[in-house]
Amino acid sequence: GSAFKNQHQTRSISVDALKPSDTFPRRHNSATPEEQTQMANYCGFESLNTLIDSTVPKSIRLDSMKFSKFDGGLTENQMIEHMSDLASKNKVFKSFIGMGYYNTHVPPVILRNIMENPAWYTQYTPYQAEISQGRLESLLNYQTVITDLTGLPMSNASLLDEGTAAAEAMAMCNNILKGKKKTFVIASNCHPQTIDICKTRADGFGLKVVTVDLKDVDYSSGDVCGVLVQYPGTEGEVLDYGEFVKNAHGHGVKVVMATDLLALTMLKPPGEFGADIVVGSAQRFGVPMGYGGPHAAFLATSQEYKRMMPGRIIGVSVDSSGKPALRMAMQTREQHIRRDKATSNICTAQALLANMSAMYAVYHGPEGLKSIAQRVHGLAGVLALGLKKLGTAEVQDLPFFDTVKVKCSDAHALVDAAAKKEINLRLVDSNTITVAFDETTTLDDVDKLFEVFASGKPVQFTAESLAPEVQNAIPSSLTRETPYLTHPIFNMYHTEHELLRYIHKLQSKDLSLCHSMIPLGSCTMKLNATTEMMPVTWPSFTNMHPFAPVVQAQGYQEMFANLGDLLCTITGFDSFSLQPNAGAAGEYAGLMVIRAYHMSRGHHHRNVCIIPVSAHGTNPASAAMCGLKIVAVGTDAKGNINIDELRKAAEANKDNLAAFMVTYPSTHGVYEEGIDEICNIIHEHGGQVYMDGANMNAQVGLTSPGFIGADVCHLNLHKTFCIPHGGGGPGMGPIGVKQHLAPFLPSHPVIRTGGIPEPEQTSPLGTISAAPWGSALILPISYTYIAMMGSEGLTDASKIAILNANYMAKRLENHYPVLFRGVNGTVAHEFIIDLRGFKNTAGIEPEDVAKRLIDYGFHGPTMSWPVPGTLMIEPTESESKAELDRFCDALISIREEISQIEKGNADPHNNVLKGAPHPPSLLMADAWQKPYSREYAAFPAPWLRSSKFWPTTGRVDNVYGDRNLVCTLQPANEEQAAAAVSA
Amino acid sequence: GSAFKNQHQTRSISVDALKPSDTFPRRHNSATPEEQTQMANYCGFESLNTLIDSTVPKSIRLDSMKFSKFDGGLTENQMIEHMSDLASKNKVFKSFIGMGYYNTHVPPVILRNIMENPAWYTQYTPYQAEISQGRLESLLNYQTVITDLTGLPMSNASLLDEGTAAAEAMAMCNNILKGKKKTFVIASNCHPQTIDICKTRADGFGLKVVTVDLKDVDYSSGDVCGVLVQYPGTEGEVLDYGEFVKNAHGHGVKVVMATDLLALTMLKPPGEFGADIVVGSAQRFGVPMGYGGPHAAFLATSQEYKRMMPGRIIGVSVDSSGKPALRMAMQTREQHIRRDKATSNICTAQALLANMSAMYAVYHGPEGLKSIAQRVHGLAGVLALGLKKLGTAEVQDLPFFDTVKVKCSDAHALVDAAAKKEINLRLVDSNTITVAFDETTTLDDVDKLFEVFASGKPVQFTAESLAPEVQNAIPSSLTRETPYLTHPIFNMYHTEHELLRYIHKLQSKDLSLCHSMIPLGSCTMKLNATTEMMPVTWPSFTNMHPFAPVVQAQGYQEMFANLGDLLCTITGFDSFSLQPNAGAAGEYAGLMVIRAYHMSRGHHHRNVCIIPVSAHGTNPASAAMCGLKIVAVGTDAKGNINIDELRKAAEANKDNLAAFMVTYPSTHGVYEEGIDEICNIIHEHGGQVYMDGANMNAQVGLTSPGFIGADVCHLNLHKTFCIPHGGGGPGMGPIGVKQHLAPFLPSHPVIRTGGIPEPEQTSPLGTISAAPWGSALILPISYTYIAMMGSEGLTDASKIAILNANYMAKRLENHYPVLFRGVNGTVAHEFIIDLRGFKNTAGIEPEDVAKRLIDYGFHGPTMSWPVPGTLMIEPTESESKAELDRFCDALISIREEISQIEKGNADPHNNVLKGAPHPPSLLMADAWQKPYSREYAAFPAPWLRSSKFWPTTGRVDNVYGDRNLVCTLQPANEEQAAAAVSA
Ligand SMILES: Cc1ncc(COP(=O)(O)O)c(C=O)c1O
Ligand SMILES: Cc1ncc(COP(=O)(O)O)c(C=O)c1O
Ligand SMILES: O=C([O-])O
Repeated sequence: GSAFKNQHQTRSISVDALKPSDTFPRRHNSATPEEQTQMANYCGFESLNTLIDSTVPKSIRLDSMKFSKFDGGLTENQMIEHMSDLASKNKVFKSFIGMGYYNTHVPPVILRNIMENPAWYTQYTPYQAEISQGRLESLLNYQTVITDLTGLPMSNASLLDEGTAAAEAMAMCNNILKGKKKTFVIASNCHPQTIDICKTRADGFGLKVVTVDLKDVDYSSGDVCGVLVQYPGTEGEVLDYGEFVKNAHGHGVKVVMATDLLALTMLKPPGEFGADIVVGSAQRFGVPMGYGGPHAAFLATSQEYKRMMPGRIIGVSVDSSGKPALRMAMQTREQHIRRDKATSNICTAQALLANMSAMYAVYHGPEGLKSIAQRVHGLAGVLALGLKKLGTAEVQDLPFFDTVKVKCSDAHALVDAAAKKEINLRLVDSNTITVAFDETTTLDDVDKLFEVFASGKPVQFTAESLAPEVQNAIPSSLTRETPYLTHPIFNMYHTEHELLRYIHKLQSKDLSLCHSMIPLGSCTMKLNATTEMMPVTWPSFTNMHPFAPVVQAQGYQEMFANLGDLLCTITGFDSFSLQPNAGAAGEYAGLMVIRAYHMSRGHHHRNVCIIPVSAHGTNPASAAMCGLKIVAVGTDAKGNINIDELRKAAEANKDNLAAFMVTYPSTHGVYEEGIDEICNIIHEHGGQVYMDGANMNAQVGLTSPGFIGADVCHLNLHKTFCIPHGGGGPGMGPIGVKQHLAPFLPSHPVIRTGGIPEPEQTSPLGTISAAPWGSALILPISYTYIAMMGSEGLTDASKIAILNANYMAKRLENHYPVLFRGVNGTVAHEFIIDLRGFKNTAGIEPEDVAKRLIDYGFHGPTMSWPVPGTLMIEPTESESKAELDRFCDALISIREEISQIEKGNADPHNNVLKGAPHPPSLLMADAWQKPYSREYAAFPAPWLRSSKFWPTTGRVDNVYGDRNLVCTLQPANEEQAAAAVSA
Repeated sequence: GSAFKNQHQTRSISVDALKPSDTFPRRHNSATPEEQTQMANYCGFESLNTLIDSTVPKSIRLDSMKFSKFDGGLTENQMIEHMSDLASKNKVFKSFIGMGYYNTHVPPVILRNIMENPAWYTQYTPYQAEISQGRLESLLNYQTVITDLTGLPMSNASLLDEGTAAAEAMAMCNNILKGKKKTFVIASNCHPQTIDICKTRADGFGLKVVTVDLKDVDYSSGDVCGVLVQYPGTEGEVLDYGEFVKNAHGHGVKVVMATDLLALTMLKPPGEFGADIVVGSAQRFGVPMGYGGPHAAFLATSQEYKRMMPGRIIGVSVDSSGKPALRMAMQTREQHIRRDKATSNICTAQALLANMSAMYAVYHGPEGLKSIAQRVHGLAGVLALGLKKLGTAEVQDLPFFDTVKVKCSDAHALVDAAAKKEINLRLVDSNTITVAFDETTTLDDVDKLFEVFASGKPVQFTAESLAPEVQNAIPSSLTRETPYLTHPIFNMYHTEHELLRYIHKLQSKDLSLCHSMIPLGSCTMKLNATTEMMPVTWPSFTNMHPFAPVVQAQGYQEMFANLGDLLCTITGFDSFSLQPNAGAAGEYAGLMVIRAYHMSRGHHHRNVCIIPVSAHGTNPASAAMCGLKIVAVGTDAKGNINIDELRKAAEANKDNLAAFMVTYPSTHGVYEEGIDEICNIIHEHGGQVYMDGANMNAQVGLTSPGFIGADVCHLNLHKTFCIPHGGGGPGMGPIGVKQHLAPFLPSHPVIRTGGIPEPEQTSPLGTISAAPWGSALILPISYTYIAMMGSEGLTDASKIAILNANYMAKRLENHYPVLFRGVNGTVAHEFIIDLRGFKNTAGIEPEDVAKRLIDYGFHGPTMSWPVPGTLMIEPTESESKAELDRFCDALISIREEISQIEKGNADPHNNVLKGAPHPPSLLMADAWQKPYSREYAAFPAPWLRSSKFWPTTGRVDNVYGDRNLVCTLQPANEEQAAAAVSA
């Protein structure tokens, strides 16, 4: 816009033109106003608004949205200033709280090149293995770190947090014993949040949790499926579990051990005690505390139970040339196949953080990790010795690793005195304190602690002076003997240059949003703007312990309050919980809210959940975890929920109806006109409506779950609200609820929390995540997105997302059938193209199209979900018309390639689709035996000539890998090791 | 190291093991102690120390080095804390000072993906065009921004700063008129630092600078070669130079205009007035002020003078397949060819910053830039109007763009009042203030300024309320009519996703230290560690105006003092100037110090500078700029300076001897044993010894320039001290001097400065750079490097750098002749392999080897310098043995490829070396007509199979490009434009 209206005549200035120029919405939303009209016209509409009016049902259309704050949207610079202001309100004290969260030095080379690098953080979950070999290798490294340190052979590639990992282990025990033994015992030496999460989770499985002191564990009931113990314990003690495990096994009880990776570099690994499942957090391996998350948890188990492991598992397989290649293993266990029979509802996990932790292990290597552990242990030893000398408090004489337990006359007074020195201690009870050490603790810190404990009395020694007297406090019987991280990968990248290049080598194999659009239906791979990402790595946000006193975290708290308020406006709800740290965790939490609500009214019998067959697999999986009975309802020919069937199901179950789960717009990419009626039917029959907010990107500003009639909804902040996918996490799945459900929102055993804004009454359902506000560190991303877009920018985003989908559908409709549409012939923010016909006409499957898209430089859309044999395309508002056109051109060109098979011009078994993707090693091999040309394989579109993203392997064989399950780095033979050294 | 000595026995702790574990030297220096011994043994020495003792001459060997601060080295975390502390001592006021430095919003996507991205900042100067097409395109964009906006057809790819760009233009005028007219006129409306730099620089050319008011410009002497004016002027006025230029040209006088890119989006371009040369700074195009730099300056000129342009110029050429490809044009003008006849001594420039500015223009596009300019102008207009209404000061009624000039009764009082509100104004004189606006100025700021100027009187209006009355203050005759940035590149990347992908697309074409070693002799491409780079983008460092009162910059000042002190210890000097912002600028400054010293003693006649033929071309070029007469001395067969010849030259010139320039260790990679004697000879004959510190990486901790006997030395902080090369800059070239030279170190006309530590007396030579402390923003890099390494870490670095070079020389000596060695058969930190023989035996030239190295994933070493027909290899201490081995393996394998030609098994004109590099487009073309196989061309070494960096073009034709000089983006025809849109 020109600042001077009619410059050659009046030459006067408009006030608007003097407003700051670094506005954000035009950087996030792609189509310019001219393009919007042009594209709407192409779709047969006069303007963008008429397209939207014809697409979103009138009955649910909002007039407008208005925020009480940030309505006009902050500019990028104003946003950074606001975030700096919030940051300055967080007072970062040195934390000795422990309890599963420790300070760590994030190696700067990892900080800058992974955590702050869009080429890593904008990656999608590695479903397309051929363009994901980099992060797949890194995740295999992660699994190897876990298996080596725990001493168990199988690990997954991360879970959400230690508490939910323990709950997953509990569910595994239940499954292993086929649900026949219904008690789960938890030793009281586990972290309180772990205990609470398991208790909450046990409910839905009909399990009884018994929490007892270790010495009182008793299996005589014969009803115990598993037992959970912690090693080292929450208050620091390191115990020998040898006899304990034998005893449990003797009673047919499975043993779960929660543990600590750093401690395991010095301690006998749980696998050597015979533990069946081991869980824990990899946070202290180079991931900042971030006021609770995100960071990667782990779960390892034996060969016997590997197929029952929850979450994603990376495995080794081979590609079409027979060369080793990695991919996600055992996808058949996932929820979209197994639905309510799935091993777990976990979907988005913590891939990015697992990668950081793996790289931390790669950088330090076994020796480096051990010397960190020894320092931590040594410093703890210095404290223990000093406190004994001081005599002002009583050090508990337990073997410990990093945590010293102290009895004293007034623990509160000591904790307060420490706080005056900007030190946080853990208050266990009014006579007990623990002091947990970590990588960042210094001799200086120990001297400060002496001062605190001396309470004014002069200290006659220094930490340094005591050191020579200090003894290793780990019993020899518990000293680790088994080597770990012996693979060359953990022994060759110890300088910054070496690690930098290893990170970049892996990165160069992976396609991300830095390369091209990743139009995954249901995943909303939109721009993750730099301004949104910047505060995430500011020390005032990264270095807060989640259990630090809330007064120290006023910046965070102000952001939570503002964010809760904004999300309420966006969703039409009354209160939000920021605790669930993924979408599926939100589903589970939301259903548990509904359950608690029914219970509170005495409706204990309400245990039926109606779920359309089109629902995402996590919906039934989550419902099953809540102990709900799933009743499926079908869809009609147009893809809409069959309302008659729904009404019948509601009537048939009216006495026991608990909930109905619905995604809106539907997973078919359509705004169902009947949504009002559907919500009414459920409410009339005593049920609550749970809305899956995965498709919120088609609602913001146009309609809202609350307005539509939902009672509760989760938001995938990693879809609509810009948290990057990180190659499979982190994510956040906060839930919003109507007033009547607000009292039941989850709380936390250590730091009280609940609905934001806070309801008048509270009666929390329990605890969902290990941290009170989930993965708080990434909330600035969604917060800044909303605050910079303002209400108008967000509404435009929804409109343009819909426009982009319709534009693509229009461009493609003459080439591929578009499966479902709304009443006016439009689609929502995503759409499905049907490839089923090609199976017969050309022997082509969706996978062939997805793999051929790789040759065109693109990541395939969502494959065969929600409808087998189709592709679901979601462009988002951030993709430019030029990019949409390129993607359409690629699909149209592929359609032509299919025609060639149909016409008999290409061999149905040996053609450019079946041969895809084509890596350089194949394309420039001396021998070329394909019936099509190299150049056509490599450069099927003109834009590829100026720059092309190359896959690094041929098509990866999933079946082979699942049959020959290998999920850790294999001991390199000498030749490989040499190659690795020179790689 | 293990924290527990003899763990199973005493189990007690060593204090050392309790020290922080995030130590830095082991991350920077590659070889572990075991590897050091192993490699020393391989070279025939018992240990690293015996190798070093045999290499560094005893007579110059230091016992040890000790710092008064940081001697033990800070850990990475301690360093970040120290830098945060310094940052907090900088008080960032809002700057309205102007004078060539303006606040700007660095677009976050550019900040994160270029300025903070090692894949961009660790690139080398694009000498190997085939693996540099990304930054070459970006620099071509930069040149196009400059030519479009200035209205002149030719631009270079950056100069150091606006002041030195003006001085380069002055030199061009002198050259254009063949040195026949010896007066250069500067209008007093130029920035004071520009005037001073030109005055200083004029000295050496024997030019007389006359500074006069514009209206008094007078060419009647007939002796004027050029005139410099500023547009807009330093105090803001925008004048019509039409008649002025005609008049100058009428007198045969060349016109140089200093200008402002943002203003040119609204103003008639200088080219349309007929200016011959246009200079300025691109800083306000998205590069932070950084307390003075770095940022890119520009110089544009007409077709007529293009071959006289200083600096690097990017041009379009073709590759071996005839496809368009970019490369640096007209390298034949450079100093290593032309030596004292070179157009200029500029070598390292500001490539990284030019790329940032180019991307800023790409992101905003012509419309976006114009609306920023219009805002800035509009807000300035609001201030002018408001001040008129206020009536407390007198607004000068000049046409202006962004700067309002105000007369008042007490300017000091106003400036002080503004400072109380954290606002910096420019004090011109005691009755004059100017207020310069920029992209970041807001209506709010204008209201604050009203308050300042109202001096307590109530302000009856707001900036917003005045806006509608404000008129455009630019005369219609000066309003720009010509379009600019019409190329598609400036019109398609306006969303963050689009720019992100454009940046990454370019990045993916360029090899950097993220991929492999770049062993450029004389360039010291060592690790640029993340911790060193982090403070560079902290707001408290980036947002300081260089002319802000020094009290506001106490963090910077403390760092300067510490750094000066550390550099004095390292070099054995007494005082440092941090002003020169590249090595060659340091050479010039150092020689000018020597000149000033001789003058101060009445030795005006001392004008001879002896320079060995082996010296870097910038040495004679710099000496020539100082008006020194160059006397060359040769080297002997062993590559050492011919001492007899030197003695004779010194004797012959003893009355006029000014200086001797020497690089140590020599550019031949040898510690000359005669260096003591050489220094003595010079001193005995009244000369001063100038040491070129480019090879300082072989001295630190082992010897020092001061100890050896040098009087002055520059340090390339972008070599030894870790400032990344940025693809051709930034750099820093501070100079250190002995006590007797300290008074002459440069000062600055705006902010007084001089030697650090400050000498007792000062008599500064003048001004070298536009900013008082050069490119202050990047000094944290060198500072943190030194502080984290400590004296021992730095000494180890020197030793390992020498070890690595000797290890490689040993591995290669049976395959290639190693050209020069010291007395004990060792080399210094770099070495030369001789390829001259292959010209006859196989028709192979160094270029063929360098290009074939690309196929092996490596950047070629320094080619044909200092000895034609050779390669000079400098591995640095940061490269691991594994990487050195891979590089040696590649060279050995190439030697074998040469043998095949020698043996007649390969065609001398058509072989894998002549065909190199092999881009994918060639390797996977359907037709393959080479006599060798595709796979052998592509994968000549095993490690390439697991990951390979691909060149994006075939060999680029330099001659074609120089004959058909095209140095801007070419107007895309429709087809190209369409391809570009879909690219
Ligand atoms: C419709 C729908 N519901 C739920 C989920 C699960 O969310 P999350 O992966 O965050 O657990 C997804 C994930 O893609 C989804 O698409
Ligand atoms: C020996 C020597 N002297 C001087 C220079 C010039 O330094 P700069 O490029 O920083 O101007 C170089 C640059 O490579 C060099 O190698
Ligand atoms: O990640 C999904 O399963 O969609």
